[in-house]
Amino acid sequence: MSYCIATYRLYDDKADFAKKAQSIAVGMTAGSWTDLPAARHESMQKHLGHVVKVDVHEPENAAPGERYADISIAYPDINFSRDIPALLVTVFGKISMDGKIKLTDLDFSEPFLSGFPGPKFGVEGVRNLLGVHDRPLLMSIFKSVIGHNLEELQEQFYKQAVGGVDLIKDDEILFENPLTPIEKRVEVCLKAAEEAQKETGKKLLYLTNLTGHTSQLKQQAVKAIAAGASGLLFNVLSYGYDVLYELSSDPDINVPIAAHPALAGALYPSPTYGISASVLLGKLMRIAGADLVLFPSPYGSVVMPREENLAIRTELLSDSLPVRKSMPVPSAGIHPGLVPLILRDFGTEVVVNAGGGIHGHPMGTIAGGQAFVQAIDAAMRQIPLSEQGAHHPELKAALDAWGESK
Amino acid sequence: MSYCIATYRLYDDKADFAKKAQSIAVGMTAGSWTDLPAARHESMQKHLGHVVKVDVHEPENAAPGERYADISIAYPDINFSRDIPALLVTVFGKISMDGKIKLTDLDFSEPFLSGFPGPKFGVEGVRNLLGVHDRPLLMSIFKSVIGHNLEELQEQFYKQAVGGVDLIKDDEILFENPLTPIEKRVEVCLKAAEEAQKETGKKLLYLTNLTGHTSQLKQQAVKAIAAGASGLLFNVLSYGYDVLYELSSDPDINVPIAAHPALAGALYPSPTYGISASVLLGKLMRIAGADLVLFPSPYGSVVMPREENLAIRTELLSDSLPVRKSMPVPSAGIHPGLVPLILRDFGTEVVVNAGGGIHGHPMGTIAGGQAFVQAIDAAMRQIPLSEQGAHHPELKAALDAWGESK
Repeated sequence: MSYCIATYRLYDDKADFAKKAQSIAVGMTAGSWTDLPAARHESMQKHLGHVVKVDVHEPENAAPGERYADISIAYPDINFSRDIPALLVTVFGKISMDGKIKLTDLDFSEPFLSGFPGPKFGVEGVRNLLGVHDRPLLMSIFKSVIGHNLEELQEQFYKQAVGGVDLIKDDEILFENPLTPIEKRVEVCLKAAEEAQKETGKKLLYLTNLTGHTSQLKQQAVKAIAAGASGLLFNVLSYGYDVLYELSSDPDINVPIAAHPALAGALYPSPTYGISASVLLGKLMRIAGADLVLFPSPYGSVVMPREENLAIRTELLSDSLPVRKSMPVPSAGIHPGLVPLILRDFGTEVVVNAGGGIHGHPMGTIAGGQAFVQAIDAAMRQIPLSEQGAHHPELKAALDAWGESK
Repeated sequence: MSYCIATYRLYDDKADFAKKAQSIAVGMTAGSWTDLPAARHESMQKHLGHVVKVDVHEPENAAPGERYADISIAYPDINFSRDIPALLVTVFGKISMDGKIKLTDLDFSEPFLSGFPGPKFGVEGVRNLLGVHDRPLLMSIFKSVIGHNLEELQEQFYKQAVGGVDLIKDDEILFENPLTPIEKRVEVCLKAAEEAQKETGKKLLYLTNLTGHTSQLKQQAVKAIAAGASGLLFNVLSYGYDVLYELSSDPDINVPIAAHPALAGALYPSPTYGISASVLLGKLMRIAGADLVLFPSPYGSVVMPREENLAIRTELLSDSLPVRKSMPVPSAGIHPGLVPLILRDFGTEVVVNAGGGIHGHPMGTIAGGQAFVQAIDAAMRQIPLSEQGAHHPELKAALDAWGESK
């Protein structure tokens, strides 16, 4: 018998947590046990959930709201189909509405995982496409391009590309629209990429935003790929993990998919409700097949605590899942002066991802990309940025504008 | 020009909320305004978001965490496609991760709504199918049937049906499985329904749980309908609203769809994060096409505050949306003694939905349904339940077991 294990944090000032755990384990699986005729016990045993752990945290003189328990329940795989909607409804469907409860962890069984091929490219696959193996990757985000036409898009793309970035992503709020439909967008951006490559000699992936009605997404993706798309951006949480799973496991969609965290803030930040960031943007994104996963960095205005960030990173890169690794992309508020910090926190298996930190560079977008390239080069060689800046005016201008984080 | 309007509650002890509102309105639409060349202002005007309202709530001597603002922003329809993922990413994608912010309301423009046919049946359509127009409907929930075979399912269905309920719904954690695959389940339950109808003379809808991978859902639904399914249950939030939209607007799926709120508790209960219940389980479920919407009742163990319940009801039944109305189904903890209270709170446009309150009846499942029928009959005729109970042993036993709420 095999089980997926869900861990919850429950806040309650008085509850008998052991009893509560037992009621979840039975209630969300066999339904009832004591009511069950003894003759049924044997046949129902394989459907019954089990309490794995009840850790009560009860500080002496606890103030109201401080008492909680971490509870783990094992759910028999036999009870649910091998898809993320079934798993989530099983482990957090009804009980998400039952008091102050947060889903803090999920452990998948091997049989459950066997239904998930995971990322088609993963960290190594993305690196292979780019031919870059020895440093963090650099991603640039289109500045808001709603209302822009193809020429303007192409120009902005070119400037980002010629600055030396490895990946360029659409803005996640750029939806299918008459001015810049996906296949035209891909076409003009690829041209810009080719032009830029003549100058930089570097390969580049363009992550174009996949949008529209669910049943049309594959067709949109195939159209984009036929036009030469080298990657896709996808707002996973607005569609559901299963849609990502189906796209990523589709043999016709043979480009990397980057998962955008849009809407995630509705789910992870509360300590008492929702789903932890490491499950939401870590484990589930990875088994659903995201090759890259964006999440709020601990550095910018859109802040996530550092330990949550690192927990996401751990899940995306951990050896404990039998699928390819997903590339962590901590995002928001990134400027060149932060690069050594990012490397310290995340290691080299990371995408340095910037929008304002590239387009807002005092010398312009091209210099913005170059400053990051220079910063990454310095950080990899453990040269202080200020030293590197002395010989590189683009980096120096960035450091002057935004500072250098220690 | 037309706009969809999102309202947020932002908590911040110090923020300049007017400035914050302005930065959301511009940042999530045109991107920047002051950076934009003056020549572009005219063409970008139609893409620019606008601040509609900033209501700051700042009690004198506010304790930390008490200061908030209700902010409304108008987003031009031209910026996003007519689908719920695009709308949600636009209004709550990135900013869901930007501090203590909750999406509390959404107002759709007429052009946006024109993309949404809404419920195919709605309140009137469901009533027409049942031939019941003058009283609340009564729904019974299968007791946990994981691990049960078709015969056991059929027996339980028969007992519920013969008690006189109008609708019977699958447990939302019953997924596609070899023991009771959807088309077989429908087949045996329909037989039981026919048998029961000989005794009750009443029509009945069976809401069978639609599960599996997203792209297979339509096929599963069509298979169930071909087998005679009279309705579907769907865990909307585990798949995304757009999947409900596509199912409900599909001409081949010509049966009512009931939306289950599984996972909703990850999103609505926090006062500072997430999405309010009236948007999540009210407006969005209705425009996405749910004919019936389940949500936690204010009476049971899975509690939602009464005002939130009534806000959901308001959105499901309001005349302000140009689509059919969705039937409210407040669920959990319902027993016959609560029926007058449900009618007082919800009126007659409601489904009285019970699980334990039917199966747990001291005289058994059949009597459980009968007790509810008797309670609804009494409440409609404004006869006290205890008086009705004097002539109806099933209702009397229920009132003795669970009491009569005043």
